[in-house]
Amino acid sequence: MTETAWFWTGTTGMALGAVVLFLVSKSRTHDEEAHKVVHVVVTVVAACSYLAMALRQGGSDVGGSTVWWARYLDWSVTTPLLLLGLAMSALHGAHRRPALVAALLGADVLMIVTGLFSALSEDPTHRLAWFLVSTGAFLAVLAALLGPLRREADRRDAGRRGAYRRNMLVLVVLWCVYPVVVGLGPHGLGVIGSTTETGWITVVDLLAKVGYGLLWSRDTSRITADDLSGRSAGPRASGPTPRRR
Amino acid sequence: MTETAWFWTGTTGMALGAVVLFLVSKSRTHDEEAHKVVHVVVTVVAACSYLAMALRQGGSDVGGSTVWWARYLDWSVTTPLLLLGLAMSALHGAHRRPALVAALLGADVLMIVTGLFSALSEDPTHRLAWFLVSTGAFLAVLAALLGPLRREADRRDAGRRGAYRRNMLVLVVLWCVYPVVVGLGPHGLGVIGSTTETGWITVVDLLAKVGYGLLWSRDTSRITADDLSGRSAGPRASGPTPRRR
Amino acid sequence: MTETAWFWTGTTGMALGAVVLFLVSKSRTHDEEAHKVVHVVVTVVAACSYLAMALRQGGSDVGGSTVWWARYLDWSVTTPLLLLGLAMSALHGAHRRPALVAALLGADVLMIVTGLFSALSEDPTHRLAWFLVSTGAFLAVLAALLGPLRREADRRDAGRRGAYRRNMLVLVVLWCVYPVVVGLGPHGLGVIGSTTETGWITVVDLLAKVGYGLLWSRDTSRITADDLSGRSAGPRASGPTPRRR
Repeated sequence: MTETAWFWTGTTGMALGAVVLFLVSKSRTHDEEAHKVVHVVVTVVAACSYLAMALRQGGSDVGGSTVWWARYLDWSVTTPLLLLGLAMSALHGAHRRPALVAALLGADVLMIVTGLFSALSEDPTHRLAWFLVSTGAFLAVLAALLGPLRREADRRDAGRRGAYRRNMLVLVVLWCVYPVVVGLGPHGLGVIGSTTETGWITVVDLLAKVGYGLLWSRDTSRITADDLSGRSAGPRASGPTPRRR
Repeated sequence: MTETAWFWTGTTGMALGAVVLFLVSKSRTHDEEAHKVVHVVVTVVAACSYLAMALRQGGSDVGGSTVWWARYLDWSVTTPLLLLGLAMSALHGAHRRPALVAALLGADVLMIVTGLFSALSEDPTHRLAWFLVSTGAFLAVLAALLGPLRREADRRDAGRRGAYRRNMLVLVVLWCVYPVVVGLGPHGLGVIGSTTETGWITVVDLLAKVGYGLLWSRDTSRITADDLSGRSAGPRASGPTPRRR
Repeated sequence: MTETAWFWTGTTGMALGAVVLFLVSKSRTHDEEAHKVVHVVVTVVAACSYLAMALRQGGSDVGGSTVWWARYLDWSVTTPLLLLGLAMSALHGAHRRPALVAALLGADVLMIVTGLFSALSEDPTHRLAWFLVSTGAFLAVLAALLGPLRREADRRDAGRRGAYRRNMLVLVVLWCVYPVVVGLGPHGLGVIGSTTETGWITVVDLLAKVGYGLLWSRDTSRITADDLSGRSAGPRASGPTPRRR
């Protein structure tokens, strides 16, 4: 497959994913509506980013090979949204610890922006320096997900606690693939070529956006049904937030 | 009139509009203060954008004619603010359905960003592709305004319901002019020249920012007076949010 | 000292400042956690900006001398965060008058963006025009800090009132140095050279971010201890916001 074929695969997959997520997700409560918006917006933005690359726009030549900055524009919007979805679940409403959520999203945006600086640097030393800064920000994201947010999730009902743990694990594992693929790619160690790199990233992107969105849709649907039937009410569980007053 | 004369007209009109809106709008409640801030910030940002174009900055040459990206920078800030004002009125506080407001503003920003991609594309096919994506996002904005937000507004008191319906209609009609003018302009079908395009957009911009702001100022003033006198209290009306405790 | 040596000084100082602020700041309440996040994020972003300049990235040649736009990218994130910290203290939670906080942060971002336009303008008249617009936005920031926000702070308990007044004064005095130094520098009157300009700005930056963050950390620690012991309860004081339910 050519690189452009991968980009069209990404465009089609994300666009179809957006339609499916829009149709299968419900919005019976504020909480469910928020998860629906997160996953539909994430896939729509990613579809636009893949369309830009498929049209051979959204890239710049750096030292003889193309850096697709459209990806980083996409990620600077979509990765904070995906983390916001996780945080909403752990906190049952992101307003509960606003500073923690702001720190998580801030570290994530810093990771993407310094990752872009790394990709745009011609000098290999500069590229490595920004890669290390970006990795540091990623570690801060992981620390927040595995530390305070996991502890918050542990204090929710069984449905939310389970959804947070499962989906957080899926997200972390998938996100670890990106720096490895970029590190092995033409701007890193040069072990794999640019088409292989694009193929891997497209597959991981589809899993981390469409597949992950479908997992959430199923979990949110079950949690909302429990909320509405009152079954989830444990000692710490808050009631559902009804969408209509 | 030359194109630059239109830009100076826009700069002066927006700056005067900001001063007038600042002077005539009151801030007796949180709600009224929020509407005042929205309309003053919108006109100030637009004045800066017109100043940039009047100084012949904020434009780039694309395929032989100038694309004024300063407009898109302006619109990426001002159009979400105008929609936020409408949503605040329909919901009596934008926090009531945060995910719906986020989806509305997200679709709007996507419309502006992909509109900019269209303007910056040299290839006519690419330009058309992004124009269609941008139009799709505009239809999503319309769907939110005419569907869930209108239903929310219907559940408010008569003052808010009427203000939402009237101002939403004005905004939608004015916003429909932009894609038509751009579509007829030198980067579209080429029916009208670049100075005529600039003239039309300047006039519509002044109506959609200064004129529309004055309409809101009058409506908000009346709604706030009703709130404070307690006259608006219907079966579903919430009380006013007093600015001071 | 060379300009690059100043940039490395900034990088090291900001990075060490971030570590120290992370270690000395506590997060016993939502309020304290929010101040901690503000000052750690501000210093981390500034460290990245100085690193970019130390690596001779993040600058563009304008009319024969380098404009470091990395600074403006940094300031567009860090100055709103610093003002948000002040506003949180004056309002005891920034949600209390959201439109006022939005206006303050909007004026601040406009100040930074038009300051960048000034720096990137080659024509001295254009540079002056944007400098005046940016100064106008700065005056709007000052008006909000000295007017409505000071009045809000006066209605809080003695600890918050004192912290607001002291830290607001420190911030305003330090921020007044920037336009003076830039005005005297090579893109302004040309009285001082580019290395001297960089040196002054680095020193003021360290004071306004690390030093100012340490002042806040001490004040927030004292206010939180008072909140938790119940000592601050005056006629208007709200109770502490406990982090955990």
